[in-house]
Amino acid sequence: MRRHGVQAFVTPSTDPHSGEYVPKHWESRAWVTGFTGSAGVAVVTMDKAALWTDSRYFIQAADQIRDTEFVLMKDKVEGTPTIEDWLATELSDGDCVGVDGLVNTVSAIEALRDSLLPYGITVEDVGDPYDEIWEERPQLPTSPVVIQGLEYSGESAASKLARIREKTGMDALLVSMLDEVCWTLNLRGDDIDYNPVFVSYLLITPDKAVLYVDRRKTDEVRSCYEGRDMLIADYLNDEGVEVKDYGSIFSDLKDIDTPVWAQKERTNYACYMLLKNPMARECPISAMKVMKNATEIAGYRKAMVKDGVAMVKWLKWLIPAVEAGGQTEMSLVRRLYELRKEQLLFMGDSFQNIMGYGSHGAIVHYEPNDTTDIPVRAEGLLLCDVGSQYRDGTTDMTRTIPLGPLTDEMRRDYTLVLRGWINLAKAHFPKGTYGSQLDVLARAAMWEYGINYLHGTGHGVGSYLNCHEGPHQFRMNYMPFPLCPSMTITDEPGIYIEGSHGVRHENTMLVVEDKDGVTFGPYYRFEPLTMCPVITWPVITEWLTSDEKTWLNQYQKQVFETLSPLLDNEHREWLREICKEI
Amino acid sequence: MRRHGVQAFVTPSTDPHSGEYVPKHWESRAWVTGFTGSAGVAVVTMDKAALWTDSRYFIQAADQIRDTEFVLMKDKVEGTPTIEDWLATELSDGDCVGVDGLVNTVSAIEALRDSLLPYGITVEDVGDPYDEIWEERPQLPTSPVVIQGLEYSGESAASKLARIREKTGMDALLVSMLDEVCWTLNLRGDDIDYNPVFVSYLLITPDKAVLYVDRRKTDEVRSCYEGRDMLIADYLNDEGVEVKDYGSIFSDLKDIDTPVWAQKERTNYACYMLLKNPMARECPISAMKVMKNATEIAGYRKAMVKDGVAMVKWLKWLIPAVEAGGQTEMSLVRRLYELRKEQLLFMGDSFQNIMGYGSHGAIVHYEPNDTTDIPVRAEGLLLCDVGSQYRDGTTDMTRTIPLGPLTDEMRRDYTLVLRGWINLAKAHFPKGTYGSQLDVLARAAMWEYGINYLHGTGHGVGSYLNCHEGPHQFRMNYMPFPLCPSMTITDEPGIYIEGSHGVRHENTMLVVEDKDGVTFGPYYRFEPLTMCPVITWPVITEWLTSDEKTWLNQYQKQVFETLSPLLDNEHREWLREICKEI
Repeated sequence: MRRHGVQAFVTPSTDPHSGEYVPKHWESRAWVTGFTGSAGVAVVTMDKAALWTDSRYFIQAADQIRDTEFVLMKDKVEGTPTIEDWLATELSDGDCVGVDGLVNTVSAIEALRDSLLPYGITVEDVGDPYDEIWEERPQLPTSPVVIQGLEYSGESAASKLARIREKTGMDALLVSMLDEVCWTLNLRGDDIDYNPVFVSYLLITPDKAVLYVDRRKTDEVRSCYEGRDMLIADYLNDEGVEVKDYGSIFSDLKDIDTPVWAQKERTNYACYMLLKNPMARECPISAMKVMKNATEIAGYRKAMVKDGVAMVKWLKWLIPAVEAGGQTEMSLVRRLYELRKEQLLFMGDSFQNIMGYGSHGAIVHYEPNDTTDIPVRAEGLLLCDVGSQYRDGTTDMTRTIPLGPLTDEMRRDYTLVLRGWINLAKAHFPKGTYGSQLDVLARAAMWEYGINYLHGTGHGVGSYLNCHEGPHQFRMNYMPFPLCPSMTITDEPGIYIEGSHGVRHENTMLVVEDKDGVTFGPYYRFEPLTMCPVITWPVITEWLTSDEKTWLNQYQKQVFETLSPLLDNEHREWLREICKEI
Repeated sequence: MRRHGVQAFVTPSTDPHSGEYVPKHWESRAWVTGFTGSAGVAVVTMDKAALWTDSRYFIQAADQIRDTEFVLMKDKVEGTPTIEDWLATELSDGDCVGVDGLVNTVSAIEALRDSLLPYGITVEDVGDPYDEIWEERPQLPTSPVVIQGLEYSGESAASKLARIREKTGMDALLVSMLDEVCWTLNLRGDDIDYNPVFVSYLLITPDKAVLYVDRRKTDEVRSCYEGRDMLIADYLNDEGVEVKDYGSIFSDLKDIDTPVWAQKERTNYACYMLLKNPMARECPISAMKVMKNATEIAGYRKAMVKDGVAMVKWLKWLIPAVEAGGQTEMSLVRRLYELRKEQLLFMGDSFQNIMGYGSHGAIVHYEPNDTTDIPVRAEGLLLCDVGSQYRDGTTDMTRTIPLGPLTDEMRRDYTLVLRGWINLAKAHFPKGTYGSQLDVLARAAMWEYGINYLHGTGHGVGSYLNCHEGPHQFRMNYMPFPLCPSMTITDEPGIYIEGSHGVRHENTMLVVEDKDGVTFGPYYRFEPLTMCPVITWPVITEWLTSDEKTWLNQYQKQVFETLSPLLDNEHREWLREICKEI
């Protein structure tokens, strides 16, 4: 810090590609603080060190930083200063805060700069200090890349590039979100947990497209495309894409005269500052990617059926196994993983799967590990939020499973969440409706009882890509992106009673055409993609309206009809019983 | 135009005080075009003239401008240029558009200026040309002013001024919205149809408050306050308010050195440009005014009961009267007006009341007049949207009344609107919820049938003030203003089938505390203020959930219990029958 003339340094959890998960190489914040949670920012001055994180991680963070100089700052808790306020207090007029422009978005640095400006404190990009001080820093990942063939993607990379160029016209586009690179080029990687992407940039100009990547991934790796086994580099060449070294993006960005579209919220500051003609325009790929084509939709259906079969096998096994004793959250996770792994084209989890028993179910992002694992007994509720990556599709579902006797409160919450889940799932809505307008449908039933949840109600799901995909979503906050046919979106209300239990029901759904409206144009509705039964015995059926019962019975019937041909007799009869009408 | 060096002149429908209704003096657009509708903009160039208006007025406007040079421009219809586009086409680089800065807000002029800038066209405030060319222009209104005593307002003007100064601190505040002047000073006027306000400005500085008004209204008019009969000017003096001539605002604004808060969306350009230190801050009165105090709430309840009694008398009379023949929309309006006029403290309509029979019910802002009036027969639906001004409160309600045999479609729409109306009315919601989040509750039932309405679902209602009061509302558009206990808001979904019928059900409601939530703080709910029965025989009862039926039965019971002590035997028994459980 002294050498760079800065009096503080800020280390966020992010990497150059603004993704939800980051490769180990960029886990500098975890390395410097010892805190391994996914969200947190470390700030170091010449004599102090502090770590900001949110309520999910208060306990874990306190524990992991106990023997360090870091002080825990509880985000959004009254009395906790913001990073900016803290810096304003700790530093003096004329001081400078150092950041690594590569792992911060343009927006993040602009916001920090704006809020420190009144205090006479400046912000400077001093590059990555960890290369020097972090011994044994993990290398950039080198996992191989595969082609996501037309049988899964439904559209060639060349065609996608042409469609993107229709939007960018005579300008260039810098793509730094890894799932957008992957979607555009029909490639997938394995550099990051849960997200089948690889570290790279893509620069699309009116007359060429260049992929910046570790060239071993393209020049030494073969994959199959349209029946031919070929080098990734040759495949890309055929699609009109040149390959260059990952690091050469910097000099290329400096040289480009064309205006370059680079969205400030998702482009790193270091790249953006190199551009002669940056244009802070929204990246068009995001809105293109969420409109799934027929091949992708068929793939989702296959993936959901596979997950459904695995879930039925697991659910049928579950109760006797728990009653027999000896099961823990971790053992249940392993069993479910094994059953999904038996399914064709299974590639792994699509996020850190959640298996929360009892009071662990009330911790929204609980992930069982060897330290937190607890025995699971034949009573209460088990919250299981599970998602898979299959080559043909990504899945995300939650079932809350009654393992034995429940309290009245548990049955109340099970029923209220179910009502919200059904009411959103069965909505019809006119063209132009935003997810944020529909969100209340999932909450109204529990609001009657003074209960709410503070997370969003739903997000898009990628096609063998990231499980969380925007920009459309269901949430209380305003998000003006209309829902359109062929988008995927989850429906996942929940109730979390601290120290007692959690309930969440979640399906992934597809937006489809409904009928033409009597008034004002086309209407849309949702079709469930997830095919997994709901256990209905805890439901307080008198609380359900007849429309809600009808929807649930129809869904259970569809689950039975879809999955039963793929099950043996014993599982089929079990499923028939579970899916019987209420 | 030549004398002022402008090549076009724009005449909007607005006045210097940005209200919904304007005094005749400022109805320049109506005078110049002949078109008398409430919304429209006239634009005149050296050789052309055009009038923009919205779909409500296409027929009326076409009719009224038939023999003029004005061409009708149908707002928001495909192919219709915007005013800006049209001006850009008609004028040339270097040309100038004239406006009267007094009847345009700062925002309106800034927007016009910004959109014409790329064409090299400027915008200039050339003052009011109509004084010169409009012979027999109506004078500014001179109706007397009355004091809205503490028995109605519940808080003195001096106290309100003190609370406003807590927010504006060492700055000054220019109040130009007439209802905000009236609320602050506990005065009411009669200068404008439906809104009991008077033409004025109020300037509040840290050490004084000045009302700019036609001084005859204050110096020659007496009113009663706290048992004393006094001159308005003396009352104001006691509350710490000085009175000056309406026209002297301009020189005073020029002289003030203090920073002056003046919201750009509601302050006229002429005033704003005079300020040395304008601050484009939101006027704090708007948010204070919507929080009704206990006295005001008690007043609403009294007003709603009076309207309810009048409605019961009218409804009981209605069917036999219609069956007997000879009734028209206008005769029904007159009858209802007479019945409301019998009520204590009735001051008039709170908006242009709507009485739309048959296909007229499908015209959202239909107002019957001698030209449009039609006979009302004993069949189909009558849409009656009625609101009153009482000294103790403003009302707004809609009932759709079955006059005889209905089609299946009418019963469907009657039921779907009722379901939406009930679902919004019975909502519970956490602190911080916006009306725009709840809006879908009123629409979800009809969306199932592909039916929607394009107006908002609800608005605030003033306390013997404007019937439409912001900023909170229910609508599809985002409006981030949380609903808080002691706000009033209407609940008025509708279905309009062109050429056939219209259905709307509307109550005015009060936001009240619910219980403390199980999770995350206080919850709120709505309490109906409107006390008027719903005629239930057209309802397809199988479509209602049991919760919806329960709410409706409870409401009808409350209406009966509230109104029956005020009715004679015959009306009481009629009401008992109407309010019986479904």
